[in-house]
Amino acid sequence: MSQQLKPITDYLDEKAGLINQHITLFLPRENVPSKLKDAMEYSLLAGGKRIRPILAMATYEAFERNSEDILPIAINIELLHTYSLIHDDLPAMDDDDYRRGKLTNHKVFGEAMAILAGDALLTHTFGNIAKYVRSVPDLSLDCGLQILEELAFYSGAAGMVGGQVADLLEEQGITTLDELLYIHTYKTGSLIVFSIRLGAILAGANEKQLQALTEFGEKIGLAFQIQDDILDVIGDSDKLGKTVGSDQMNDKVTYPFFKGMEASKQEVKQLIHTAKDSISDIGINPAYLHLIADYLVYRES
Amino acid sequence: MSQQLKPITDYLDEKAGLINQHITLFLPRENVPSKLKDAMEYSLLAGGKRIRPILAMATYEAFERNSEDILPIAINIELLHTYSLIHDDLPAMDDDDYRRGKLTNHKVFGEAMAILAGDALLTHTFGNIAKYVRSVPDLSLDCGLQILEELAFYSGAAGMVGGQVADLLEEQGITTLDELLYIHTYKTGSLIVFSIRLGAILAGANEKQLQALTEFGEKIGLAFQIQDDILDVIGDSDKLGKTVGSDQMNDKVTYPFFKGMEASKQEVKQLIHTAKDSISDIGINPAYLHLIADYLVYRES
Repeated sequence: MSQQLKPITDYLDEKAGLINQHITLFLPRENVPSKLKDAMEYSLLAGGKRIRPILAMATYEAFERNSEDILPIAINIELLHTYSLIHDDLPAMDDDDYRRGKLTNHKVFGEAMAILAGDALLTHTFGNIAKYVRSVPDLSLDCGLQILEELAFYSGAAGMVGGQVADLLEEQGITTLDELLYIHTYKTGSLIVFSIRLGAILAGANEKQLQALTEFGEKIGLAFQIQDDILDVIGDSDKLGKTVGSDQMNDKVTYPFFKGMEASKQEVKQLIHTAKDSISDIGINPAYLHLIADYLVYRES
Repeated sequence: MSQQLKPITDYLDEKAGLINQHITLFLPRENVPSKLKDAMEYSLLAGGKRIRPILAMATYEAFERNSEDILPIAINIELLHTYSLIHDDLPAMDDDDYRRGKLTNHKVFGEAMAILAGDALLTHTFGNIAKYVRSVPDLSLDCGLQILEELAFYSGAAGMVGGQVADLLEEQGITTLDELLYIHTYKTGSLIVFSIRLGAILAGANEKQLQALTEFGEKIGLAFQIQDDILDVIGDSDKLGKTVGSDQMNDKVTYPFFKGMEASKQEVKQLIHTAKDSISDIGINPAYLHLIADYLVYRES
């Protein structure tokens, strides 16, 4: 089939615009202490590409559906993602003062408020989805419960939080390639996989399609992380005026540290190729998902 | 109707035993970093009266149902309660080294792990309930979604987390009686109200019953907190060898500070009386709920 495709940056901007336009509607308003409201809103609106809800929407569209229909569900992934960033930036965790050029939540609102704002964002992610599913007559209730079950799975102790913990332990110096792969697979990958599965489940994907899209998510999630490592090493190398090779001795263990730079780059290419391949022949229109996969890893920063 | 009632302490011990026997089954096991698993389990098993799931079970029993049937749902309130305690004890929050005579989570596992263990417990509270509801054929899916929606409401920004935030701001010195009532109503009260509503919803309560039980929960929750304040003041007075009156000038603002000790004690009595009254004539058997209400406020510590 021939299809007039927008440039991927236009596609992403358009979706992100839609998300930004609606996202504060999903914050609780009544009877909420105003400082808490401010803290939640601050980080939710602190920028970001909104790539996770966009992945859910693009997956839904791959089934020839109108993705605006699932915006009220997909948008909540961004609440959960925001909670994870707020907690990740805390002094006890990565201790970051800035994110995307803005002060982190705890730098503005204090540590206690940042913890609680994250807790509330996580809580309302689940509540918003449950509420919305109940309110829409043509949405299967079991499908809604499946989404909530999977959301907990992919963002919980065996998913995103597990990846965070592994990352924490890694910083304490306990790392093998397997452990690095665990971190890369779960810390960021889990929520990417969930986002894609969300779009697929809501579109009524069959088992084979769901499986293929899950594989697509796993592969692009991993490729994204390896690419991140590659850019880290190259960035450090540029900054320090060192050769790439010597950077492999850096404090932070990266994929190139274990595999070498060239092999790492090859692996990214291979992962993206396999990812795209896995959804090319399952009866969906994979065009934008393919473009997003490329965009994720061939970005400059 | 005449009923052979157990002593309330026996009733509570029996239920708590049942909960303790099963609770670790509700922790995620597979693919979870062992330190995270340990941290979650440590606080989940660090004692506690399990009063919230017991309230859900006692409410269910008030409809002449077998409360063991809802144990797999009710038990999860304890996961959520445990998350709130772990985060509440953090250095940035109340900075407590001990809880119930045991080291707090962050003292044993470090601050970062404590934050993440709390996050995971919160996450799996929702996931476990969604999963269980899907697996039980005779449970209405909409009822399951309603529970999840209400759980987020009562534990979120307009409920428990909101109460925590208000408590935090109070410690910074901004307090009126209204603000203290907000804290008392939401910080502990919200989850007590949710627990009772959970039992009622699962038992198929009608609107009038649900309303009455909600009022019961609100009243005993508030009475519990005022009683806590009273015990605090008396405790401090004993410790410091001061008269009760002078304690009203303590740093921590309490209900007796605004209302005086005698009026506070009267208010507790009145709240418990109204609470019990509100569920005496709604077609349920309120016997154990009445006993629990008395137990909650007429305890020694």
